[in-house]
Amino acid sequence: MRVRGAPLIGATAAYGIYLAMIEDPSTTALNSAYKLLSDTRPTAINLRWALDKTRERLATLPLEQRQAASFTLAEQICKNNVDCCYAIGLHGANLLREIHKAKATSKPLNVLTHCNAGWLAAVDWGTALAPIYLAHDLGVPLHIWVDETRPRNQGASLTAWELDQHGIPHTIIVDNVGGHLMQHGMVDLCITGSDRTTANGDVCNKIGTYLKALAANDNNIPFYVALPHNTIDWSITDGLNCIPIEQRDACEVTHIKGVTKDGDALTVRIVSESSPVANYAFDVTPARLITGLITERGICDASKKGLLSVYKEADHEPI
Amino acid sequence: MRVRGAPLIGATAAYGIYLAMIEDPSTTALNSAYKLLSDTRPTAINLRWALDKTRERLATLPLEQRQAASFTLAEQICKNNVDCCYAIGLHGANLLREIHKAKATSKPLNVLTHCNAGWLAAVDWGTALAPIYLAHDLGVPLHIWVDETRPRNQGASLTAWELDQHGIPHTIIVDNVGGHLMQHGMVDLCITGSDRTTANGDVCNKIGTYLKALAANDNNIPFYVALPHNTIDWSITDGLNCIPIEQRDACEVTHIKGVTKDGDALTVRIVSESSPVANYAFDVTPARLITGLITERGICDASKKGLLSVYKEADHEPI
Repeated sequence: MRVRGAPLIGATAAYGIYLAMIEDPSTTALNSAYKLLSDTRPTAINLRWALDKTRERLATLPLEQRQAASFTLAEQICKNNVDCCYAIGLHGANLLREIHKAKATSKPLNVLTHCNAGWLAAVDWGTALAPIYLAHDLGVPLHIWVDETRPRNQGASLTAWELDQHGIPHTIIVDNVGGHLMQHGMVDLCITGSDRTTANGDVCNKIGTYLKALAANDNNIPFYVALPHNTIDWSITDGLNCIPIEQRDACEVTHIKGVTKDGDALTVRIVSESSPVANYAFDVTPARLITGLITERGICDASKKGLLSVYKEADHEPI
Repeated sequence: MRVRGAPLIGATAAYGIYLAMIEDPSTTALNSAYKLLSDTRPTAINLRWALDKTRERLATLPLEQRQAASFTLAEQICKNNVDCCYAIGLHGANLLREIHKAKATSKPLNVLTHCNAGWLAAVDWGTALAPIYLAHDLGVPLHIWVDETRPRNQGASLTAWELDQHGIPHTIIVDNVGGHLMQHGMVDLCITGSDRTTANGDVCNKIGTYLKALAANDNNIPFYVALPHNTIDWSITDGLNCIPIEQRDACEVTHIKGVTKDGDALTVRIVSESSPVANYAFDVTPARLITGLITERGICDASKKGLLSVYKEADHEPI
């Protein structure tokens, strides 16, 4: 958990392979680094994508070329990451502009997001936040509802901070509030990121995403997911049964870091030691609850047909 | 917020009137105490019920009898509170026993609850937790998923502690987790309390209840609400538009109390000072998402017909 955010995990893993190749460019070392890095995070598929891509390429090269090649590959992955996020931002910003136009009001468009899928989760721009940044820059008035995102509070700490840096009006809410806001017409649309998307459009994302998608669906509010090509796992269609869900340390739930009134950072326990805790990190939102997927190639239906309409070259992983 | 829990708020308000009558038994003082207490909490209807009942009775009495009468009334309200919660517990425990029997397994029944509706929220027993205590005592094997219940963490702090005191197996989860558990067959039913129930069975309860009801509905999991008669507001049918939702201090979201590793209780800030916060305390779960209401008179459909089938005497507030 030193690195988080699906796109950033993939990019970092590529540099991890490079660091391993500096020490030892053998195939044994390559496989060992692959396994070490791969095992760190079972859910986010970008990690495996970057590792597969890097290992496949290096395996064809003589040992003396592997160090330089792995560095170049990591750079390419980062550049592709930024390009994809920017393209997602452009497609998403157009969508936000259209939705705002259709509302025929000068009031800000209220967008709800869960967790952090901004530039802190990617190399730049982010996925779910890229459309928000670019729409804001285009002059679309926005207000963002930021889910706190327990237990690690990435919304309250990272997303809110990112939006503040960019000057975008926003309000932090606890994860329980979104349904109430949607019932009362206070949310115009939702956008989240994805840690893994199946070939038929199911989305695995930060735990609690499914609950917001249910609420959006119940209130006829569009629910979009922003993701680059390498978040798609073309090998599976059943997100609920085929995506492993990380269970993390209980201390993420039992303890929290904050700042005292004297300005000192401190971790406190917020749960009694006598109560057990379970800590599932992701959940799966079925495609039926998703209005559309915002990809770097454009916006498509959350379905196999939809995904293949933008990724025409393949019913397997494209790039 | 010195007192919380719908049933306990009502009982405490009755003693509040008694304290006012000690000082000054005049009708002016009575009305002034009524208003002072009534304004403290707009959502929970038990408060208004207890105040209405007390004021109506006292208004018919000469001044010199009001102090003693208000004390007797408060005692009666407390006794009625305990009797109702125990009866809710018996009806609910039978339900849990039947559901467990139907599962034909010796494995524990997994019950999810949100917030705290146990004896800390009532004079004794509680509402949502009363069936759990009595079913446990009857030998029904149970395991309770306890929603943390941000922002005040009544689940993680109060419900978990109550269950631990009673020796009932339980696990604390953050509010985002329940949907994932339901998708994977790890929840057999949900039970929550209610702060106000409309005449047609809409339930206003702690913020986030609606999201769990949506998930239960999406996964065909029974969603029950446990409530006594005085939680019903017979004057309204549209919960979404007619129940005022308390907005509480932002510091409930921005700050949290915990214990340092040295054992000191301390409050820390967990949200940057530059980000605004909204703090809605309740939401409304429409009757269509509720499997049944567990009342002190028995279990009924969440509908006007259902409520009138157990509260036969009235289409107004009965006792």
